[in-house]
Amino acid sequence: MNYPMPTGKLQIIPLGGLGEFGMNCMAVRWGDDIIVIDAGLMFPEAELLGVDIVVPDISYLIENRSRVRGIILTHGHEDHIGALPWMLSELNVPVWGTEFTLAYVEDKLDEHGLLDDADLREMRANERFKAGVFTVHPIRVTHSLVDCVALAIHTPLGVVIHTGDFKVDPTPTDNHLFDLHSFAEYGKQGVLALFQDSTNVERKGYTPSERAVRRKFDEVFAHTQRRLFISCFSSSIHRIRLAVELAHQHGRKVAFIGRSMNNSAEIAEDLGYLNIPEGLLINPGDMKNFAPEKVCVMISGTQGEPMSALSRAAVDNHKHAKIEKGDTVVLSSRIIPGNEKTIYRMIDHLFRREAHVIYEDGTSPPIHVSGHASQEELKLIINLVKPKYFIPVHGEYRQLKLHAEMAGAMQSSVGKVMLIESGDILEFDEHNARKAGKVNVGRVCIDSGSRTDVVEDLIIKDRRHLSEDGIVLPIIAINKLSGRVESSPEIVTRGFNPGEDGLMDGAKRIVEDTLAHSSEEEKADYGVIKEKIRADLKRYISKQTQKRPLIMPVILEI
Amino acid sequence: MNYPMPTGKLQIIPLGGLGEFGMNCMAVRWGDDIIVIDAGLMFPEAELLGVDIVVPDISYLIENRSRVRGIILTHGHEDHIGALPWMLSELNVPVWGTEFTLAYVEDKLDEHGLLDDADLREMRANERFKAGVFTVHPIRVTHSLVDCVALAIHTPLGVVIHTGDFKVDPTPTDNHLFDLHSFAEYGKQGVLALFQDSTNVERKGYTPSERAVRRKFDEVFAHTQRRLFISCFSSSIHRIRLAVELAHQHGRKVAFIGRSMNNSAEIAEDLGYLNIPEGLLINPGDMKNFAPEKVCVMISGTQGEPMSALSRAAVDNHKHAKIEKGDTVVLSSRIIPGNEKTIYRMIDHLFRREAHVIYEDGTSPPIHVSGHASQEELKLIINLVKPKYFIPVHGEYRQLKLHAEMAGAMQSSVGKVMLIESGDILEFDEHNARKAGKVNVGRVCIDSGSRTDVVEDLIIKDRRHLSEDGIVLPIIAINKLSGRVESSPEIVTRGFNPGEDGLMDGAKRIVEDTLAHSSEEEKADYGVIKEKIRADLKRYISKQTQKRPLIMPVILEI
Repeated sequence: MNYPMPTGKLQIIPLGGLGEFGMNCMAVRWGDDIIVIDAGLMFPEAELLGVDIVVPDISYLIENRSRVRGIILTHGHEDHIGALPWMLSELNVPVWGTEFTLAYVEDKLDEHGLLDDADLREMRANERFKAGVFTVHPIRVTHSLVDCVALAIHTPLGVVIHTGDFKVDPTPTDNHLFDLHSFAEYGKQGVLALFQDSTNVERKGYTPSERAVRRKFDEVFAHTQRRLFISCFSSSIHRIRLAVELAHQHGRKVAFIGRSMNNSAEIAEDLGYLNIPEGLLINPGDMKNFAPEKVCVMISGTQGEPMSALSRAAVDNHKHAKIEKGDTVVLSSRIIPGNEKTIYRMIDHLFRREAHVIYEDGTSPPIHVSGHASQEELKLIINLVKPKYFIPVHGEYRQLKLHAEMAGAMQSSVGKVMLIESGDILEFDEHNARKAGKVNVGRVCIDSGSRTDVVEDLIIKDRRHLSEDGIVLPIIAINKLSGRVESSPEIVTRGFNPGEDGLMDGAKRIVEDTLAHSSEEEKADYGVIKEKIRADLKRYISKQTQKRPLIMPVILEI
Repeated sequence: MNYPMPTGKLQIIPLGGLGEFGMNCMAVRWGDDIIVIDAGLMFPEAELLGVDIVVPDISYLIENRSRVRGIILTHGHEDHIGALPWMLSELNVPVWGTEFTLAYVEDKLDEHGLLDDADLREMRANERFKAGVFTVHPIRVTHSLVDCVALAIHTPLGVVIHTGDFKVDPTPTDNHLFDLHSFAEYGKQGVLALFQDSTNVERKGYTPSERAVRRKFDEVFAHTQRRLFISCFSSSIHRIRLAVELAHQHGRKVAFIGRSMNNSAEIAEDLGYLNIPEGLLINPGDMKNFAPEKVCVMISGTQGEPMSALSRAAVDNHKHAKIEKGDTVVLSSRIIPGNEKTIYRMIDHLFRREAHVIYEDGTSPPIHVSGHASQEELKLIINLVKPKYFIPVHGEYRQLKLHAEMAGAMQSSVGKVMLIESGDILEFDEHNARKAGKVNVGRVCIDSGSRTDVVEDLIIKDRRHLSEDGIVLPIIAINKLSGRVESSPEIVTRGFNPGEDGLMDGAKRIVEDTLAHSSEEEKADYGVIKEKIRADLKRYISKQTQKRPLIMPVILEI
């Protein structure tokens, strides 16, 4: 619907990411002006068969197409930018991002053939810009990625702060400090609402600095006798930078293997986040010319993705990345829930290659640290900002709830806590705030190959059914002119184990019986006769086998 | 093959569980006598579509059918007894187990209609019995389940000890102590080989006692104002016992909800592991007659299994288990890798019901403790037993390897470490031990419904294919007598999104072209013509859509 917008009201409408993990996207509206914060994707659960990515349903934005002034990106992770190709192909509006974020975006849009038509606008921390009625002030924050910002949005009703993803890292490797002063300044002046990242709300204390992994990396570089393979998320610029520094210190050449690792390193180097000394970098193909103890390989595939360079190396199926007895492989990343089995399978293969494998096992010093703020950091920001309203974002429901409870207990810093979910309209006016209805939201499933090929629910349901019990197709040839059934029905199956020999003969007889007991009129109405066959055959197969394959009668007119 | 057995040699042949998680099963052979330790299943990975359980391939045992003297069970967990129905239906041999283990086995065999024909023999800790040439001595160990044993097997070449699953719990809730003395005594006399559980080899230190959860349970019972729901594995008799004790102390009635929870509690009570005071137990249907603060519900479904009582209660879809605002729900179990998403989805629903949810979050005191020995306990047993040969069992490859490395460093206690995997024949003689070939092992996939319905690899492969890209069936009617193609081909799809309208018309034309360019002979050979159609259509569809559905030409003879 093209919602009527009351005057004098500010609406905040999360279109994804509140009550689910990923696909962060939030609309901010005043009258005829809408801006959108982030355009993230979600990686599908295994049950969404044949679906590659999931993006938010943006029908609200499409219905208000003429009002959308642009999309503002907080940082370059997939759960914040991954839906951009899909969104821009529906809605070509300006996109603001920091230099580094835009570099990732350009890559992505180029891949989808959308770059030429895109209106990308660079923003810088601490430089305000206008988007419709709003003035946006990007504020430097620290995170596992570089060049990340929170957004202070000046609206006619006051300032709204959205943290984006962050942790409060006192010693970031790029020395770009978290801008605590801006948060403090806004807190002194008064903030209408704070929207804060809930990802790590279940963790007590402080998240360690990115520098905390340095001790472990030092140890690994000092002890490794042969080739050293390091895998991390390709966007972990801090980690790549650290590895490159240490490789240089320890006299190891560096090779980058894997497309995403290469892209990311290239962007980081171009933009000055990564300084690779002359002569340090070698081509993967040249590794064989260096002694094993003189090589460090940065390799993609920390989550055991089947086609990634590391997965292939683990089963000795990569042209350049040969892992041999005594080599060391470091997985400097967390195990994303759902990926355990795949990752451990890859680790097993690395053990079989007799590599020494270092992965997150809870010991200290850590080989990986999180990029998200833990409880004490969340409280720090709340205390600095002292918002009138506090709203948890980025989290599954339990995380939003726990975050709301935490903030609710901070009565001297927080006016009121509002717990909302994707689709809720949160409305502010001069006096107060309330939930004021809902907009349509949901998951849009995108298939591989084409850039914006939506997979419908029905297709996914069919696939699930097919995958569980297979398919049975009774095929009947009917003479178009006479309406007579020609020859006996054929029954074809796939993914279904008929078991005993007699079952398919029995099924054939069932179809023949159904045909024999149907009137000429029924047989002439293909819908009716198909449904009769389906029902009879379903009953028979389920009784004989306790299984429920998809049954799909086919009438062939001849 | 019916392997020839050299004289004077002892063979140990793991048929499952070494290099994979679950389906523990190991054959011990001397000449014409084989005994089998455990008969476990494995829960399938998501990629095994439509498969409910996975059991070991026991063709080695079937080929040596006349030699198998029996199966000896160390304890009643599914990964040690779950393949019994399948194995006994192939091989009806005596089964030894402790009283409690056999109670679980009876239940399971009864369900599969196999109980009447089964030869179940109770064994007791410390009472030796003969099985073929072997004398078996069950030794009491502690674990998350009750009545668990290790096995000391007296063979003509010496004593072999298999630990089963264990931890060294100094204060088990049932006061049946770990029999350290028997291990020590064997160590003094000399042990040929020790086969030890590797599950927790990655954990440093000691696994806490089952009693460690009591502090957290105490806290929960003291603070809970309304209804208290406790979920744990139904086999966690220690946990159920603790909850029942505390409920009694705190004046709460107890209701058991869920089939497995009921079964397990009934068995535990029958065998004296659970003492339910008169009047404490109430029927789930009577809960409504008691004030919320007077009720404790023990409920199945800690892993978020979709049809479990707790999952249904979480979405307010259980007749008796109504979870209301302010109720407390305790998940006293670990999150099994692979189940994270399902479990957190359930927890989210519980938060939406405004329940207070307590789950394993790494804080102390713990709400759950592991049942498997950590590094220091593993070392303790090695030091007590001082085996000539040490062989890690129960683990994925990396765990076996780490366990082997750990034991290898204990040179004053361990003679030699042998790292073997499922299928390896480990052969001992008077002088030494070696790998002496392999037997066929593997996973047998069992479908639901029928008790022993094997799903073949090809079917699973088809299902995977169907689930990813769907199916396309070109259907052609050919006149049996004339060989003529009657009418134009029909193309049917399922789980496949043809996208643009023209695609199916194009596909039809491709099939027509293929038919037109095929000779009468080719058309008469259905194999040839089907393959030609498949190849041409595959090329066309993949070019047009970048997708690869399963293509399955059907010839209908009329």
